[in-house]
Amino acid sequence: MARTGRRPGAGGTRDKILAAARTQFGRHGYEGATIRGIATAARVDPRLVLHYFDSKDGVFEAALELPFDPAAALPPLLAAGVDGLGIRLARFFVDVWDSPSGTRLHAMLRSIVASESAATRMRDFATREILGRVAEALELDHPRLRASLAASQLIGVAMLRYVVKVEPLASAPAAEVAEWVGPTLQRYFTEPTATHRRRRPSPGR
Amino acid sequence: MARTGRRPGAGGTRDKILAAARTQFGRHGYEGATIRGIATAARVDPRLVLHYFDSKDGVFEAALELPFDPAAALPPLLAAGVDGLGIRLARFFVDVWDSPSGTRLHAMLRSIVASESAATRMRDFATREILGRVAEALELDHPRLRASLAASQLIGVAMLRYVVKVEPLASAPAAEVAEWVGPTLQRYFTEPTATHRRRRPSPGR
Repeated sequence: MARTGRRPGAGGTRDKILAAARTQFGRHGYEGATIRGIATAARVDPRLVLHYFDSKDGVFEAALELPFDPAAALPPLLAAGVDGLGIRLARFFVDVWDSPSGTRLHAMLRSIVASESAATRMRDFATREILGRVAEALELDHPRLRASLAASQLIGVAMLRYVVKVEPLASAPAAEVAEWVGPTLQRYFTEPTATHRRRRPSPGR
Repeated sequence: MARTGRRPGAGGTRDKILAAARTQFGRHGYEGATIRGIATAARVDPRLVLHYFDSKDGVFEAALELPFDPAAALPPLLAAGVDGLGIRLARFFVDVWDSPSGTRLHAMLRSIVASESAATRMRDFATREILGRVAEALELDHPRLRASLAASQLIGVAMLRYVVKVEPLASAPAAEVAEWVGPTLQRYFTEPTATHRRRRPSPGR
């Protein structure tokens, strides 16, 4: 019955740290918040914060309550290279949203749209932890624009399939949605841009 | 200084009708709400509702405060056929969001994510007035799924470019965003599905 991997009975302390972390991140942003500041606000020893969450990144992510850890989930998806990356990411995304913990993503989306500071916090995190990792794996010009376009398609599916529940997208099987959306991501990752095509030096130069 | 096309000084009545309409649509849904019910709630003659808004659709759309009228905006975009439809819709969408009235769409998106009943109301309207029209213009199988996938890409751009403001998507020129996103919509509109390819009867049958 105890929480996995942590001392039983310590739920109260962990939750107190998370509540303090949300306040600190909300007030000072990711850069401004510190382990020490979070510990002081939660009235615990800073070493206890590290005991539970390992790092500032760890506290931040737990405070966001994402149902997956990008630092663990993305590398295996990216390791196989750009080939087929679109469909792998699309499948992963739809599977997480379709899982029971998808409701937490719904709550996160709600807080992003409702609050400017939640949007900023999430933007900083997603840019660094998700878009940054994907952009690094890409091999063409404008890797960050490409990664953010792919993210826009995925967030749009989340909005219409899970939040607004537009049919037939809401009821389509996960695999079918991934098959439609995967090639969109792949095109963003691998399509040469018009600029790129125009500016590519000719073999003679 | 008067509101365009309507009697000056009548703003109070018009706003009273709109407030009553929002309550009626919220309570009874689009199908259940009536011109008579809205008029009664606003304490005006039903003919006054029609004077200001022409029809139930008209009241509904004014209550949503969309910065464009799908019944007027979509037919010209669709009339030129499926060829190039993706880029035309992408340009139209980005231009409306980039215009000063884009803030009203932002407010609408916020209310959809925050409230289940706003989501339902918007879903019914968008399905009928936007997705329905686009689906009718398509020539392949699954027209409604195709239209809703295209809508998911557009809503996703709205989320990341205008709400969360993820760079470099937030600052990219409108034309560049439309050039990236247009072919995505076009692919949803015109790509034969795997099922379609598999199930297409052979010439001999």
